[in-house]
Amino acid sequence: MSNLPGTMKWWGWGDESIEFDIDAHPSLWPYLSSIFKLPDAGKTATPVNLESIVLNTQKLNPDFVNEVLSRLPPDTGSSGILCDSKLERLTHAFGKSLRDLWRVRRGIVPYAPDYVAYPASHEQVCLLVELAVKHGVHLIPFGGGSNIAGCIELARPTNRAVVSVDMRLMNRLLSLDAESGVARFEAGAMGPHLEGELNRAGFTLGHFPDSFRFSTIGGWVATRSAGMQSDRYGKIEDMVISLRMATPAGTIETRNVPKASNGIDVNQVCIGSEGTLGIITEIRVQVHRQPERNETYGYLFPDFASGAHAMLACQRAHCVPVLTRLNDPARTALSFAYRARQSYVQHQAGRLVKLYAGKVRGMDLSTACLMLAGFEGDRESFRRDRRRAEAIFRKFSAVALGASPGRSFQKGKYDFPYLRDFLMDRNVLSDVSETCTVWSNLLPLYEASRRAIQTAIDAEGTPGLAGCHISHSYHAGASLYFTFGFVAKAGDEMGQYLRIKKAAEDSFLENGATLSHHHAVGYEHLPWLERDISPAGLTAIEALKSGLDPQGVMNPGKLVRGFGFEKWGLGKESERTSSGANGRGNA
Amino acid sequence: MSNLPGTMKWWGWGDESIEFDIDAHPSLWPYLSSIFKLPDAGKTATPVNLESIVLNTQKLNPDFVNEVLSRLPPDTGSSGILCDSKLERLTHAFGKSLRDLWRVRRGIVPYAPDYVAYPASHEQVCLLVELAVKHGVHLIPFGGGSNIAGCIELARPTNRAVVSVDMRLMNRLLSLDAESGVARFEAGAMGPHLEGELNRAGFTLGHFPDSFRFSTIGGWVATRSAGMQSDRYGKIEDMVISLRMATPAGTIETRNVPKASNGIDVNQVCIGSEGTLGIITEIRVQVHRQPERNETYGYLFPDFASGAHAMLACQRAHCVPVLTRLNDPARTALSFAYRARQSYVQHQAGRLVKLYAGKVRGMDLSTACLMLAGFEGDRESFRRDRRRAEAIFRKFSAVALGASPGRSFQKGKYDFPYLRDFLMDRNVLSDVSETCTVWSNLLPLYEASRRAIQTAIDAEGTPGLAGCHISHSYHAGASLYFTFGFVAKAGDEMGQYLRIKKAAEDSFLENGATLSHHHAVGYEHLPWLERDISPAGLTAIEALKSGLDPQGVMNPGKLVRGFGFEKWGLGKESERTSSGANGRGNA
Repeated sequence: MSNLPGTMKWWGWGDESIEFDIDAHPSLWPYLSSIFKLPDAGKTATPVNLESIVLNTQKLNPDFVNEVLSRLPPDTGSSGILCDSKLERLTHAFGKSLRDLWRVRRGIVPYAPDYVAYPASHEQVCLLVELAVKHGVHLIPFGGGSNIAGCIELARPTNRAVVSVDMRLMNRLLSLDAESGVARFEAGAMGPHLEGELNRAGFTLGHFPDSFRFSTIGGWVATRSAGMQSDRYGKIEDMVISLRMATPAGTIETRNVPKASNGIDVNQVCIGSEGTLGIITEIRVQVHRQPERNETYGYLFPDFASGAHAMLACQRAHCVPVLTRLNDPARTALSFAYRARQSYVQHQAGRLVKLYAGKVRGMDLSTACLMLAGFEGDRESFRRDRRRAEAIFRKFSAVALGASPGRSFQKGKYDFPYLRDFLMDRNVLSDVSETCTVWSNLLPLYEASRRAIQTAIDAEGTPGLAGCHISHSYHAGASLYFTFGFVAKAGDEMGQYLRIKKAAEDSFLENGATLSHHHAVGYEHLPWLERDISPAGLTAIEALKSGLDPQGVMNPGKLVRGFGFEKWGLGKESERTSSGANGRGNA
Repeated sequence: MSNLPGTMKWWGWGDESIEFDIDAHPSLWPYLSSIFKLPDAGKTATPVNLESIVLNTQKLNPDFVNEVLSRLPPDTGSSGILCDSKLERLTHAFGKSLRDLWRVRRGIVPYAPDYVAYPASHEQVCLLVELAVKHGVHLIPFGGGSNIAGCIELARPTNRAVVSVDMRLMNRLLSLDAESGVARFEAGAMGPHLEGELNRAGFTLGHFPDSFRFSTIGGWVATRSAGMQSDRYGKIEDMVISLRMATPAGTIETRNVPKASNGIDVNQVCIGSEGTLGIITEIRVQVHRQPERNETYGYLFPDFASGAHAMLACQRAHCVPVLTRLNDPARTALSFAYRARQSYVQHQAGRLVKLYAGKVRGMDLSTACLMLAGFEGDRESFRRDRRRAEAIFRKFSAVALGASPGRSFQKGKYDFPYLRDFLMDRNVLSDVSETCTVWSNLLPLYEASRRAIQTAIDAEGTPGLAGCHISHSYHAGASLYFTFGFVAKAGDEMGQYLRIKKAAEDSFLENGATLSHHHAVGYEHLPWLERDISPAGLTAIEALKSGLDPQGVMNPGKLVRGFGFEKWGLGKESERTSSGANGRGNA
């Protein structure tokens, strides 16, 4: 089944055939080599051979396997609903977080699933769940496998057989209600397929996460994903109309109703459940007519604060672009370095704009920040929205850079993870940590967290850098998305990573923000969960688990207590409680 | 404590000093008397005297009472945190549904609470919850007491003492973050007080439910309330940023964060919980700068369908008025009859418009439908929004009626429940049932449900009428709000009511809609809950109950199984299952 669309290389991100092309970005290597003090572009840390990898011993459960096969309708016999080849087990062992890739590239695979299941219908998923309960098997739902919070890896050792349930055979558009703007999909539909189906009918979902090419709608819903156009279309939880989720206690099925007052919102009990309560099999989402025009432009702001204030002003004036991405100075430098090879004219035009910003407008180019802003609509609303937003940008001293930076961004927007692999080949580890807060706390949080991350990088004693961008804004606040990279120290790579990651997350929680805006909890963020949602809040989630999955079949060890820094691979539990105030109510 | 702001008459809606003034609406009595075949305006069914009412015997729990009083700080001793006078118990026995009022007016009070508590702080609420668990007492949160779904009445007999927890002493604006547009309130803040506090700082919440004058923000959140301006500001669940809820398992406290991906959204576990998991004590909500201009206008559409299509077209063009209320023909007739006494000029102008609509535009005034549409913003956006919406209305053949119908609506928008009491004094019972569906199902559902309700009214053999309006619309659909009234048959009034109510709700569920768009479940809608959210969905809610309130302290009998039509006072359980298909997954 590993030839299914969206199957990624086992040792890194994306298509097997694609490797990051550093030569297409002529300014990038000079930039990277200066930041990370790299002597040349040669690979210094490549993955092991597939042949040399020894997976954890398979835990067999023949009773489960036999009953699954015997209970399937006869005509599904050869579909290979249960696989257990080495490659299947390996490609379902991890998501694509830094820790995931670092381990798999070294052949460290402690918890590969024992089987991989490929159900083809809601009923087959129900059968898997029923028999998992009966035969004491664990199930972990698998969408595109691109999660970077550790959602799809087994969180702890178990004596039970573990089945990764790959949903990608369930990828159909089941119905499209054009009048209502509601589409019903099977949960395994991947981004490009889903958008393609909608586009053919003139619609779009408007959900474009960085993982778009390698993630499914079921995964988006299970992790509360956000796409680049969330400012217009909302996060995925804002798009869901209804869903079906197969749980050990039966199938949860909500109605095709935009809004209701029917007690606790059962959709919201399933959204964000990260596979711990059941497997989402179908989702109705609101969809939109494709816009006539869609274009992204670049703007240069004198500093991060003025760009952030412009974003807030757009919120207050009800003229928010469909996409806004404000880079801080470090991220701006990377963005400019990342630009693709330009024609002589483009290059000269870029120099002229910089000259204008610097000499004429007096902008300090070392603090200047690049914003990308996208607009869409029919010709009239496109023009109106752009004009109104640009009037606001000008109030905050922005210089318009035209459409070229936008086109460059749109062209490469899904390619950044390939760069991470390129860097890993050269012993540079990079990762991200993102959060969300209210407007009044945005700049203080930015300063505190940037400092905390940079301090943690510096403390390791190898070259490294942290940058940040804002890419999702709301009436009450916005997200902050930090990217950091550092040269690894042999033998302590993961210690190094975890200490920096911990500094970032600690800073978020200490400064009133959340553990993640759209990357989910998984194992990466589990140590902060109780602090984020309060002990009684976690009790609520555990109550759902007890009631819907009393035998603990589904994605064990996630969204529950008892997973502290020790299990996370760093320090002692006591570090955690001493690391900062959590405010009242969390004692 | 019964002199707290927002205290309503025990026998009906609203201020004791206010009685519906039929003379202020000169066309109303002729209309009502012709519909309901009433001979004259004299009262024929007035409430019993307060003195004659005998409440259920008080169940004492002196251990609870003594420990509550001894554990309060000394300076709160005289605040009367626990009351048990007849009037206190009576005014906390019911909400304001038709059944509630019908019973209390006859002195039928089977389940008055044994005590009424008035906590003054989050800590006092926690104390009440802790001691309720310890001493085996039930708690039912009480906001404004205006709920019409039976949320605040004890749902079934119990041997334990029952305490109604009146939150109205906790009404403070705790903080206002003007930059972020976030306000933090205690849960007992009532509509007018809350808006007053915000208005003083130049802000508004934008939440104006029909119950606005007699309901609290805590009640809104606990029931997933919607206000008249929901099209702009969202339902209350869209406004909540964070909250605190005191539960038997501790205080749930979420963070001041606009959006997150931190597992299942714990805010959403508390929102809509209807007092079954704990008591909401504080809420952060997003608030907005008050608009410069706000005005409502009237429009006449040739029929209900064209008005509904215009609403959908506004959604698709992203120019939705802040308030839209489309009446069907029956509701239009009532609206015109309801108009306040007019000057001669106003009256003649109204006649001219009707003449124009009928003679010149060829509109059939028996099918014509009144829409009220409100716009707000600064001068420019007000004008732009109004112009764009009116261009759409014209495409659907609307005739503009000017500002007069809008002013009339704004003046009387909170007064309708007084008319219900007026009618009840004359043996006419009226109530409402509302729902929500997707656009493609809106008109089929409207026709089916209107017919079902009218058929049920007619089957009773006394005069009656059903009307409908749409007042909340979304990208994917809209609400339908049915109002019905009928002349009561002595001795079978509640049977009559319940059969008609059942016809309405059955029709909603059979036609794919939900049991309520914004009135909550309570006991009125509990028989339909499992069918609405699926058996496993109800298992999820029951799981939360088991985990957060294992001893069943909080608002017993709500949002759980085992409350069918028999307990509801009508027919047998078997009637329910035979009443229509619920689709797959709900078997």
